[in-house]
Amino acid sequence: MRRGVPALVVVGSIGLDTIETPETRRADVLGGSVSYACSAARFFARVGMVGVVGTDFPAAHRRLYRRLGIDTTGLQIVEGRTFRWSGVYEPDFINRRTLSTELNVFADFMPELPPAYCEAPLVLLGNIAPALQRHVLDQMRAPRFVAADTMDLWIRTTRADLDAVIRRVDLLTLNDSEARLLTGRHDLKEAAKAVRRMGPRYVVIKKGEHGAMLLHPDGLSLIPAFPVDRLRDPTGAGDAFAGAMMGWLAGRRRIGPEAVAHGMVAGSVVASFAVESFGLDGLTRLDRGGIETRRRALRAMASVFG
Amino acid sequence: MRRGVPALVVVGSIGLDTIETPETRRADVLGGSVSYACSAARFFARVGMVGVVGTDFPAAHRRLYRRLGIDTTGLQIVEGRTFRWSGVYEPDFINRRTLSTELNVFADFMPELPPAYCEAPLVLLGNIAPALQRHVLDQMRAPRFVAADTMDLWIRTTRADLDAVIRRVDLLTLNDSEARLLTGRHDLKEAAKAVRRMGPRYVVIKKGEHGAMLLHPDGLSLIPAFPVDRLRDPTGAGDAFAGAMMGWLAGRRRIGPEAVAHGMVAGSVVASFAVESFGLDGLTRLDRGGIETRRRALRAMASVFG
Repeated sequence: MRRGVPALVVVGSIGLDTIETPETRRADVLGGSVSYACSAARFFARVGMVGVVGTDFPAAHRRLYRRLGIDTTGLQIVEGRTFRWSGVYEPDFINRRTLSTELNVFADFMPELPPAYCEAPLVLLGNIAPALQRHVLDQMRAPRFVAADTMDLWIRTTRADLDAVIRRVDLLTLNDSEARLLTGRHDLKEAAKAVRRMGPRYVVIKKGEHGAMLLHPDGLSLIPAFPVDRLRDPTGAGDAFAGAMMGWLAGRRRIGPEAVAHGMVAGSVVASFAVESFGLDGLTRLDRGGIETRRRALRAMASVFG
Repeated sequence: MRRGVPALVVVGSIGLDTIETPETRRADVLGGSVSYACSAARFFARVGMVGVVGTDFPAAHRRLYRRLGIDTTGLQIVEGRTFRWSGVYEPDFINRRTLSTELNVFADFMPELPPAYCEAPLVLLGNIAPALQRHVLDQMRAPRFVAADTMDLWIRTTRADLDAVIRRVDLLTLNDSEARLLTGRHDLKEAAKAVRRMGPRYVVIKKGEHGAMLLHPDGLSLIPAFPVDRLRDPTGAGDAFAGAMMGWLAGRRRIGPEAVAHGMVAGSVVASFAVESFGLDGLTRLDRGGIETRRRALRAMASVFG
């Protein structure tokens, strides 16, 4: 691989989040889909981030990215305030309400990739407007494997743009309710099949604490979630899952159904650390040893066939 | 084993159900926890049923039990009408409302076991009033392994009786919301641990389409659900699951965490056939070959660890 070319490029949001759970509240926590995905991918691959922050973005956060080994040459710093989101979780720690969204510098974000990024073999189009996802994809020279994430907002508001992106990706991740919304089908297996007919060879349905389902060209795979001792903050769990999965895949010579399933296991394990702590803390404190120990524990729990 | 002694005794309700799903409605369908559990257990073990019906109970239903190889010597036929339940499923095919319950002959049911049943090594105390479950347990001479199922009604209304039963069983099955109701803990792993402190060595949390979790003396096991093509009627899924699990265990020399997990896989597979068809139809049409084919398919779907 060429010097300076990341194995994986991730685009998405970078924000300062104010999060309220039934237990605690923290203001201006480093967040955003890129932050979670890159912090999770870095265990497995050299990852380059694409995102935008304002001049108010604390230097300590940029130092954190670099300390984690994330390539930040694709991070734009623009005059103005950083994107901010605030939300409150209901007592179940799963459903949440958005209290406020300040787009700030994110409103005019047009992701421009450093030249080395355009040569990267893998791309994760994190959860941002489909038009921006497409703009990133257009700059990639010949990516080997492209994954995209999305959310209900884009399904409802920019459906044509989203459909155009979905047609061009190898893998799409959605949570269960988004899969139902996108396809109008209640049954998840049927919903996944309908998404596959829209383009992607791989469809990943995320079910939170219930694990994830993969529809691939040869059939279905079921990936268990690691049962955490205590759920503290589910923010970014899906981004961490997708980031770790893509990081894992970046290290594989061949990307087929088996490799994608193994990557999802890595995603499931890394995401379990993310939700056990507040914000990015679980991911920044984690190391490969911790991941491997929990991966083995999850394998033992799932060894239920005689 | 003594001649005429079933390997597994199951007690529970027998009813004529009127079920309305978003797709269809059928009246006076053979149902009840004993019907589902025995129809599922019979693939793996000689099973004896304990239950009560009225004189209006169609002879064809009794013949069906016998055709399935179920021992009906513990089936009481009492002057009066059979227990009737009617319910309607919401569009998600999961949540349901009870429209009416007619206890009829079930109101005065006092389960008396045929002498041969008292020698049975395994007992499944299906979902009936805890006082009746205890009455069955008191008649068993020296059961090797006792499992009980329960529901929100008994947790809310007869808690002391239920606690007394829970103390005496080896395994308790509950669905996720019941586990939370019983223990006051939201997190399922914590809830399962709290149930274990109440007595049972094994706690099985059923999560419907999301599979099941087993807390055992050595830790946790995660059992996937088979993703069905089309959910038609979830009635009796939990009973079929427990029946198949206990039938499977009846054939095991040693019952430990591994055997219970394997039994739960059998339960998961058999229950998937139950919910694909209306009422008992999926279970009565099923054969061992069908179970084994689907067990292998589920194992392949769950083979996601490198």
